Amino acid sequence: MALPRDYAGQTCSLSRALEIVGERWNLLIVRDAFLGVRRFGDFAAHLGLPRAVLADRLKSLTEAGVLASAGDGAPGYVLTEKGILLWPAVAALAAWGEEFYAPDGRRSILAHQADGGLIDQAGRCADCQHLVDVRDIVLRPGPGLKTPGPDADPVSIALMAPHRLLQPLLN
Amino acid sequence: MALPRDYAGQTCSLSRALEIVGERWNLLIVRDAFLGVRRFGDFAAHLGLPRAVLADRLKSLTEAGVLASAGDGAPGYVLTEKGILLWPAVAALAAWGEEFYAPDGRRSILAHQADGGLIDQAGRCADCQHLVDVRDIVLRPGPGLKTPGPDADPVSIALMAPHRLLQPLLN
Repeated sequence: MALPRDYAGQTCSLSRALEIVGERWNLLIVRDAFLGVRRFGDFAAHLGLPRAVLADRLKSLTEAGVLASAGDGAPGYVLTEKGILLWPAVAALAAWGEEFYAPDGRRSILAHQADGGLIDQAGRCADCQHLVDVRDIVLRPGPGLKTPGPDADPVSIALMAPHRLLQPLLN
Repeated sequence: MALPRDYAGQTCSLSRALEIVGERWNLLIVRDAFLGVRRFGDFAAHLGLPRAVLADRLKSLTEAGVLASAGDGAPGYVLTEKGILLWPAVAALAAWGEEFYAPDGRRSILAHQADGGLIDQAGRCADCQHLVDVRDIVLRPGPGLKTPGPDADPVSIALMAPHRLLQPLLN
């Protein structure tokens, strides 16, 4: 359902943002791109998403300038600078999910690459107090993350090891 | 389309968060609640949303514990504490929208009630450097906000004046 044009155009930048990333899959694709997922098949396997739907979503995110081709002959997609600026929104929504929907404890932990300090809700390192750039964040599994089974997808398996955000997750 | 159960349940708190607020209307309803919109008719007029859809979304947000009845005999809905904790996500998405989809300048400006300092992207007051609670934020129209026409909805008209977040916007 489209938002009324005058509403979207006139008063609200949030509604424009949500036209791009408000669809649930879009924000999960963006999240996967922060994790370092790049290839079509890896997005598809991790998100459990029909290939036609994924192709459509990747196209719309690319047209919106959030994703771009990895380039240099490498297959797949990477976040643009505009896409990387979605990090505070992705991190805030994920933190809210961890707060209310992780009964076995946090599933993921974000730490500062430089000193290992934990990243707080405002994006600061608890050790050095700096606001940490997303490129300097390491994601590691938390106590609430269950070990994936033998038939799990490659992304879920790779995420059992600490991984620096935005670096390619899989070869 | 539902997310695969094991995916949603096992690895990802973001996907659980998006089950609640990932639908675009839901996050716009939550945003309106931060603005102080409470009554069904005001949400409907401001969002331009069919009443049956709005009723369904308000019900799902209430069942998820994000909204609750205003209580004390007052009509309408207010954010719960769980709902108020969505503020960083709403603010981050709105800031991203302002960055990329406000060609005439910012449509809204957030300031600290106590000293008038502007709120930065990390939620801090540029004057006193404190992390500002959402209840202490005043929203005022920015240079990019067009004056609503005479047939505009009451919420859009009320938002032309500075307004403290979470306080009732309309009588």
